[in-house]
Amino acid sequence: MSTPAALYAGAGSVIYAEREVEAPKSGEVQIEVAYTGICGTDLHIYHGVTDGRVDPPGVIGHEMSGRVAAIGDGVQGWSIGEAVTVMPLDWCGHCPACVAGYTHICHNLNFIGIDSTGAMQARWNVSERTLIRLPPTLDLSHAALVETTALAVHDVRRANVQAGEKVVVIGSAPVGVLIGLVAQSAGADVVVLDLDPFRRGIAEQVGLRALDAGAEDVQASIDAWTAGAGAYVAFEVSGPGGGVATAVELLAVRGRLTLVGIHSAKREMDLHRFFWRELVLVGAWLYGREDFESAVDLVANGSIPADLLISRIEPLDHTADAFAALENGVGVMKIFIDCQAPAHADHEGARR
Amino acid sequence: MSTPAALYAGAGSVIYAEREVEAPKSGEVQIEVAYTGICGTDLHIYHGVTDGRVDPPGVIGHEMSGRVAAIGDGVQGWSIGEAVTVMPLDWCGHCPACVAGYTHICHNLNFIGIDSTGAMQARWNVSERTLIRLPPTLDLSHAALVETTALAVHDVRRANVQAGEKVVVIGSAPVGVLIGLVAQSAGADVVVLDLDPFRRGIAEQVGLRALDAGAEDVQASIDAWTAGAGAYVAFEVSGPGGGVATAVELLAVRGRLTLVGIHSAKREMDLHRFFWRELVLVGAWLYGREDFESAVDLVANGSIPADLLISRIEPLDHTADAFAALENGVGVMKIFIDCQAPAHADHEGARR
Repeated sequence: MSTPAALYAGAGSVIYAEREVEAPKSGEVQIEVAYTGICGTDLHIYHGVTDGRVDPPGVIGHEMSGRVAAIGDGVQGWSIGEAVTVMPLDWCGHCPACVAGYTHICHNLNFIGIDSTGAMQARWNVSERTLIRLPPTLDLSHAALVETTALAVHDVRRANVQAGEKVVVIGSAPVGVLIGLVAQSAGADVVVLDLDPFRRGIAEQVGLRALDAGAEDVQASIDAWTAGAGAYVAFEVSGPGGGVATAVELLAVRGRLTLVGIHSAKREMDLHRFFWRELVLVGAWLYGREDFESAVDLVANGSIPADLLISRIEPLDHTADAFAALENGVGVMKIFIDCQAPAHADHEGARR
Repeated sequence: MSTPAALYAGAGSVIYAEREVEAPKSGEVQIEVAYTGICGTDLHIYHGVTDGRVDPPGVIGHEMSGRVAAIGDGVQGWSIGEAVTVMPLDWCGHCPACVAGYTHICHNLNFIGIDSTGAMQARWNVSERTLIRLPPTLDLSHAALVETTALAVHDVRRANVQAGEKVVVIGSAPVGVLIGLVAQSAGADVVVLDLDPFRRGIAEQVGLRALDAGAEDVQASIDAWTAGAGAYVAFEVSGPGGGVATAVELLAVRGRLTLVGIHSAKREMDLHRFFWRELVLVGAWLYGREDFESAVDLVANGSIPADLLISRIEPLDHTADAFAALENGVGVMKIFIDCQAPAHADHEGARR
């Protein structure tokens, strides 16, 4: 059958086209995709930096929601019409990381939506083992936030955040805000830092305290908040910004810094401070099934106010515009693509 | 009374002199010092970099052994002649780190032997609470290795080394070798890397495997040893060397890098690899009483072959020569100062 799709066609180019989708193979399920989000990794792809992994023109996208539309041979326990999201990981099962139980860090990981065909299309075939069941009452536009929330759940779990701990999140783009919300739901006392007033405004709307990362008195504010101790936990979610250095300054003795942002260049670090304050730096990458299951609960029970984080929903044939808007980056949090509605002439009504 | 002492007298200068030592005050004990070691921190002092903390001319030295020689008012539970070492830390008890239980990282820490008078003298007054009891059978020259061993115990504890884990120690100066021995005594499988053939030779003599850190096939050797997984734990004990970058390359997915070496300059780090392999960096600084108590056991039961690590014992009036020999750095591990024998004319017989 034919499906409408948005395809990454090379650096800076996303095109809308019809493409063939086969029936699901043995062990696969075909999903009728509802919504697919665009994340920072998709923007990296859009910049052409992953062209060795993505073969243009190709369908990308890995944060989504939808319903089971067709079921391949040998797949049991799933019914047509069931609401699902996908954990977009396919691991080899035999490398040292898989054998050690860290399948999400598989040495040969197929990250679905980058290394293989993604979800920015109306129909998508995936392996049965990637499926995550959604509660039937969960709005599918909210459910497309589950994958990003699973990242945040994993990050908070890696940081071993405890109730009552004072936590600083550096960067309040969507993952930063979600980390703040997940940490807060775990009982932590959270402050988010960002340079951008729009993103700080969103953080405040969802119930987090936000400070201007560029203000001169950040250190003094954190000192006052923590009675001179510093924060027990920091999350570096700013990537190219100076977040690592800021975090190292703001952490208490024995504080833990969780590294979430993508650092493509090497960074200078004050290892002496790491040493004598016995700080801990923890890398946090992707997620596992338990993170997805917690994320489903948090989105479904309203701990994650999804509506406040979804800036716009664009139809599939406007995907190029959505990439351009995120590239611009001003005044947007999440943009979702409505993969059910490719042919609408005017979708301004979907703008929020 | 008067005591012979070696005094740091400014950058590059150590002098031998008599100085006055008062009777021990209330809560203090006077120790008849047997042996005092010279460590990397003492060399930093010798280079003048801590002149803001050390007030020359002043007695330095903080790794030692001795016997109780006099007891101040209010001190209970100690007898004249008992063998002791000292945990050279005096903390404030009321800063956030102390309140959190991390007294060794006290914001106002008095590191005895740097911030206050040290052990390179025949008589030394210390607070009762710094004393660590030694078994009467333990050779006092071996006992002067307890403080350095306590560092290694603390480092291995911070790394949470488990039996059977493959551990790489980068740098086989005394602390590196001691970390290797402590990790091995905890059941780990240890490889030590160093550029220096003398230090590698010592590592092998004490029963550790040693590889040339400058060899082209280090990565291949570690890959072969770990069946492609990488090491679970690395200790960076090389300081200014490229040990951090090497460790990050050699670690397995979820591997832990413990930072022991002193990095006075900022270092470039490959945070991307930290992130996607979920590595952990752990700062390890000084020790606590339980580390000292474990260290006493390890030195006393022969797990630490002290004789092989003590290159030379020099009399107190040759302390300047000992600093010069360590400054040169070739062919020496630990040098101890014999504080009992300041007036011997010729100590060549003590050279090992």
